[in-house]
Parts: sequence; C-alpha cells; structure tokens
Amino acid sequence: MQRKKLVIGLFGFGCVGSGLYKVLGKEAVTGQVATIKKIVAKNPLKKRDIAPHQLSYCKDDILDDDEINVVVELTDDADAAFQIVQAAMQKGKAVVSANKKMVSTYFMELYHLQQEYRVPFLYEAACCASLPLIRNLEEYYDTDTLQSVEGILNGSTNYILTKTFNEKIQFADALKTAQALGYAESDPSLDISGKDAAYKLSILLIHAFGIHVQQEDIFTVGIQQINEVDNAYALARNQKIKLVARAFKQLDGCVRFFVMPAFVQHDHYLYHVDDVFNGVITRTHLADTHFYAGRGAGALPTSSAVLSDIAALGYQYKYEYKKLVSAGPKNISHDCLLQVYVSFPIAKADFVKNYFTEIGEAFSNSEKGYFTGTITLKNLQALQQKDEALSFILMDVCIAEEEQKHEAAWQEEAVLEFE
Amino acid sequence: MQRKKLVIGLFGFGCVGSGLYKVLGKEAVTGQVATIKKIVAKNPLKKRDIAPHQLSYCKDDILDDDEINVVVELTDDADAAFQIVQAAMQKGKAVVSANKKMVSTYFMELYHLQQEYRVPFLYEAACCASLPLIRNLEEYYDTDTLQSVEGILNGSTNYILTKTFNEKIQFADALKTAQALGYAESDPSLDISGKDAAYKLSILLIHAFGIHVQQEDIFTVGIQQINEVDNAYALARNQKIKLVARAFKQLDGCVRFFVMPAFVQHDHYLYHVDDVFNGVITRTHLADTHFYAGRGAGALPTSSAVLSDIAALGYQYKYEYKKLVSAGPKNISHDCLLQVYVSFPIAKADFVKNYFTEIGEAFSNSEKGYFTGTITLKNLQALQQKDEALSFILMDVCIAEEEQKHEAAWQEEAVLEFE
Repeated sequence: MQRKKLVIGLFGFGCVGSGLYKVLGKEAVTGQVATIKKIVAKNPLKKRDIAPHQLSYCKDDILDDDEINVVVELTDDADAAFQIVQAAMQKGKAVVSANKKMVSTYFMELYHLQQEYRVPFLYEAACCASLPLIRNLEEYYDTDTLQSVEGILNGSTNYILTKTFNEKIQFADALKTAQALGYAESDPSLDISGKDAAYKLSILLIHAFGIHVQQEDIFTVGIQQINEVDNAYALARNQKIKLVARAFKQLDGCVRFFVMPAFVQHDHYLYHVDDVFNGVITRTHLADTHFYAGRGAGALPTSSAVLSDIAALGYQYKYEYKKLVSAGPKNISHDCLLQVYVSFPIAKADFVKNYFTEIGEAFSNSEKGYFTGTITLKNLQALQQKDEALSFILMDVCIAEEEQKHEAAWQEEAVLEFE
Repeated sequence: MQRKKLVIGLFGFGCVGSGLYKVLGKEAVTGQVATIKKIVAKNPLKKRDIAPHQLSYCKDDILDDDEINVVVELTDDADAAFQIVQAAMQKGKAVVSANKKMVSTYFMELYHLQQEYRVPFLYEAACCASLPLIRNLEEYYDTDTLQSVEGILNGSTNYILTKTFNEKIQFADALKTAQALGYAESDPSLDISGKDAAYKLSILLIHAFGIHVQQEDIFTVGIQQINEVDNAYALARNQKIKLVARAFKQLDGCVRFFVMPAFVQHDHYLYHVDDVFNGVITRTHLADTHFYAGRGAGALPTSSAVLSDIAALGYQYKYEYKKLVSAGPKNISHDCLLQVYVSFPIAKADFVKNYFTEIGEAFSNSEKGYFTGTITLKNLQALQQKDEALSFILMDVCIAEEEQKHEAAWQEEAVLEFE
C-alpha cells in the first residue's frame, strides 16, 4: 500500500507537542512520512525554538491551509479543542488527539463528524499513553466474547499511591513530584478525584462494548480519602491499594462500570504495576486474560502513541466502531452487589452500617473504624453523596451463584469440545 | 465498512479445528460473519461429530469449491500445510493459519504468493496463541524506534519449568502433564529443544524488524540440559530460569537474536509469567517497555486468535509487511558479547574455560561445576556444537560503554526536549 503524504498542522506546543516536533525531525523515527507545516501555540509571550514561518497564534492559519491534511490536537482545554477538531474535520482534515476529556465528552458529536465528513479521527494517546488499547479493543477483541476490561488507567495517581504506600512519602509531596515529572494533568484534581480514569474508561467502553456514557455517569471514587487505616489493612494482608477502572458484562447481559480504589492481591497482575505505569487486563471466554502494561503518563510515551496514530493515517487507518454500529443489544446497569471495605470516623459507624447489605468484619478504635461486607453499587453511591470523606475500597464484585454455574458450564463445555 | 461474507473451508479437525467448528456455531461469538462449509480431515477411521455433507477427506473438495473464500489451515505437518495454503492462495482464497513452522520455513514463498495473488494470509495464532503480537508489531510499532522484542514464547516449556522449579516435580512428569493438557506440540522435542520458540521468534523478526531468517539460523538452546545445580544457583539469588527468545538492535544498527534459558530477576516482568502463560516485552525509545501476557498454548486461546483473524478478513485486513518492504538497511549479526552461566561435568572444566572471554564466578564440587562470565555468541555456539549436554543460561547481554553513553544521551536529550 502506498503511504499517503501527511502535512501536519499542530495545535499545542506543551510537553507532548514540542516533543513531537523534535521527534518528527528525526528521519529514523518517522520514515519521513509526515512533516509539520504549521504550529499554533497559545501564548505569544513564551519564547519557542521554532522557525518563525512555522509558528502562529491564529487557528485559521492551520484550518484554512488546504495543504495541511492532518491536524494534531494537543491542547488541554476540552471545549476549545472540540471547536478546533470539529472545524478541522468539516474541512476534510484527519485528526489525531490525546485529549481524553474532549473525546469522552464530545464523543457522539465526534462520531457523527467522522461519518459525515468521512475523515479519520484517532486518539490512542487519550488512553494509557503509549499502550495500544483502543486499537486492540477495536480490532482484536472483535469476535471473541469480551467479558471485562479492568485496569490502572491513571499514571499520576498510581505514582502517588506507590510513593505513599510503598515508600511512606506524604501525599502532598508525592503529588508535587508527580507534577514536576509531568505525570499529572494541569489540574491535578482531575487525576486525584478519579475523573481522569473515568474519562478513559468511558473511551474504553466505546471500543470494548460499543457503549458510550459520560464521565458523570460513571460511579467514581478517587484516592484523596485513602488513609492510614486503609493502608494498614492492605499491608497486613500483603495487598496494595490501586485505583482501578472496571467494566464487565454479567449474566443478565448488562455491562457495569465504575472507577474506585481496590485491594489488589500480591499474585494479581495489577499488584506489580507501580509508579507511573498503567496496566490493563482483558478477559474473554476463549482467551482468558490478557495483560497489557506500560508507562501511563509522561511526554515521551504520549508522543509515541500520537506518532503511531500519525503513521496509521498514512495507511488510511480509521476506527470502524464495529461494536457501536453492530445490531446487538447494549444494556447497561448502574447497580450490582459489591464486596467492599468502608472506613469512617468513629461517629459515623451506625450511619454507614445502614447502607450495607451484610457486614463481614467490623473494626473500630477511639477515632476510626471500618466495615467490610456486601453493599449495592447504588447504596455505595448514595453513601458517597452523603459524605465524600468516607473511604471506599473494592474487595470484589459479587458473582451470583447462577453466574458462577454458567461460567463453569462454559468452561466445562469448552474443555469437552477440545478433548 | 461492510463486512464481507466469509465461507470457510477448514483443514484439520484436531483440538483447535474442532473447537473452532463449535464456536462458529455460537451466534454471540461470531456475529454470524463466517460459516464453515466444508471440513477436510486426515483420518477417515476416526468418528467425528460433523454432518456428513460437511466432512471430506479430499483437499480438492475445499480447493475446487469457488464459494469457499477462506481456507483455515490447522493441520500440524508444515510441508503438507504449505502445499494446501499455496494451492488455496493460487485460487484466490484468503488463508488463516496457526502453523508456526510452516509460516517460518516457507515465509518468502508465502510472502510472494500474497503479492502475486493479492490474497490476505493471517497467522496471529502462530505466535503466542491468543496474544495479539503480530498485529501490534505490524501496525503499532511502525514509526517508533523499536529497540527489542523479548519474551517467553513457548507455553509448554514454561509450564515444565514452572512445575520443575517452583513445585519440584520431575521433568518427565511435568512433560507428561503438559502433553495431557494439550500444551505440547505433537512432537514435544520441538518445544523442549527451543525450536518452537525459534520458529516464533523468526516470525516476530519479520514484523518487528522486517528481517526473515530460518529457524536454523537462530542460535537456540533448549531446556533439557537444565539441572539441579542451575536451579540451585537461581534459587539462591531469588531468580527463576525461563526460556527466553530475544531480538534486539545494537548501536551498530545490527539486529541480533537467539533463544536460550535466562535467569530472570524477581522484579522482572517475565518472573511472574508462569505455567502455560507467555509474556513478551517490547522496548522502544519513546514508549520504553510494553508488556503483553496471556495464555501461550491450549486449544481455546489458539482458537481465539484464529477467530480474530477470521473476523479481520471480514474487514479486508491484511499484513502490509511495512518493515520488510521499507527501504532502510536491515543488518543482522550473529555475534555479540554475552554474560552467561555455563554448568558442566567437572571433567570438562578446562575445556569450557577456554571459550570464555573473561571468567567471573567459578564453582565446582566433585561432580559438577559452573562458570559465569563473558563469552561471545560465536563461542557459545561453538561450545554447544562440541557438547550438547552443557547447560547455558543467559545472565545479560553485554552493552558496550559507548552504547550505554548513546542510550543515556538519547534519554537525556528526550528529557530536555520535554522540559
């Protein structure tokens, strides 16, 4: 197949943008398939190492240039980014973006723009930086019965959890280092509140299950409320606490999803995913689990995914959204039974207890306490709305007995088939 | 994109073939994109649960049927398989295969057949069962500076190493269980000698670096000579012994490759890849490492990859062999300096010593001994040819000082760029 010559207009000259500019100058990396013609930056007062004829502060210098056939969007304002991307697609330009908030929030508009103007729009870098998740979910897990996708999707919070848990560094200091290393979003509360992971999960849901929901519709618990009682609980059981995003199909055909801290056993794949690394596990009936791990934040890994998308445009690659357009039902549910750990100031014990379906362990000292047990997702959500300072940590998703039987029967049948 | 209707002719009705037949009958799994019209099996005496009009023992019943547009080849004789695949492609049929030996051995012929007859030929299942390695190497690591691919590519030997090392089970018993579980090749010596892993490495080399070499040209050490002295050495250092295939680019631009047992540190990704699982690590300048893990053998995972390939045909997917056809030089080298551990019967100590560039540790008791130190790959090969019973285990690839400096400079420059 003949490679298409790509002429790029780049929006945003921050970490990733400036890196991409340098890297595209290196012959070995790019195979000279793409050149950057124009860069539109935000701040005219900032000194930049770009030839003056390449630099501009007016978006129309890219949008109105017919020679530019690819827009690479690397700004960090989701609304402004969407305006740019929309205009670029309306002018028939292909678009590559790393903006998870924009992709998640404006997904339906972006999907229809792709259909209407028949232009590709790629955004692998929006999810776990360099890990090729979107493409694999889109292309590889097409036929197989995908059961679940779960993982650590946010590098910044994983870095903080690693430092505070493994190395006993203070939360504020760990956050400061994460920011200095360029791991955190420009607004770190997006990371810490779990919202960044929820945006990414919303994107994975599209390509894994053909379902689009807004970030606000994903039950999300961040890491800011995790305290020393929680850490001690994990430590005593040789477990770690990780911020895990999860989407899974149950026997009723419904897909359920949420982002929340989870206790991870020492023999679990995610236990070993530390620092800024991300790790994602897919589960299918036929292949069982697949595990993907790699750096989940940072300018270089993010550039790497942007480059892969640019290269793919050279071969006319585009997402087909196979699962989104397929005829099958895509039911979602916002409720299920979970086994969780909830810790609280001691005065709240009775209040918290009422929300549980069944209490397992109960602990208290003069200041704090925790319960473990089963609780519905809906009750957990209600509890969170009442008191944001409570600490929720997932132990497991409860699997109904009939679901266990169904799964066992599937496996047994499968084994019989192959004997 | 409209899905193409696929009518399949299936060769081979063993583990994977019969599983695929059952799975393609399940609507949920396939989306009804593909139907099996005819199955050609080998042994007419074996009773099979197939409708008589679907079953045949004559290959022309598939090859001469113009309605059949996809041949799925799941037999285990590489030469006979190639004859079938060649004939199918000449008749314009797309082909899916899981036969690593055939793909590796006949690769150049198969490549030219794809060009000449413009038919896709997919073989994801030939490498690490269900893990999507070939497609990711082909599509995703296109632009980036891929530095190395290494991993555990053979599920059967990994199962045996896990059982003998972790659980102290006898080699012969572990092999027997691997065979009973359907993990081993029909001729298990292919697994144990490392040849199966070498076939797979040969396929990865095509898609990772655009290089094709025959299995015979890959220096290969199996697992049969690993003994209790070696295991004790690993155990004392909190390491495991894994059979690792490795291909890597060095500063001179040459790609080097081999398959041999390696000591793996407890904090290394591959340390946790046990039992029948495979694990592969890619390293690129921009993205650093990516780790893929999943079941590396067994009928279900293999079927899963075959199904993904069939689904991809529905969307006109084919390998572009981008790196093979790209203009850049593809130099290979069969020599480099390695840090290895070699164990031997005590009488051979002086003989072995002569091959080393430099000796580090030396150990001996009344029966056995080992050296660690540096040795050239060429000398290791010579030593293996002289005495196949010696045990070689890789400790590390020696990186020249200038190469370390180059790598450090790259990283430093990259970091500076992004500051």
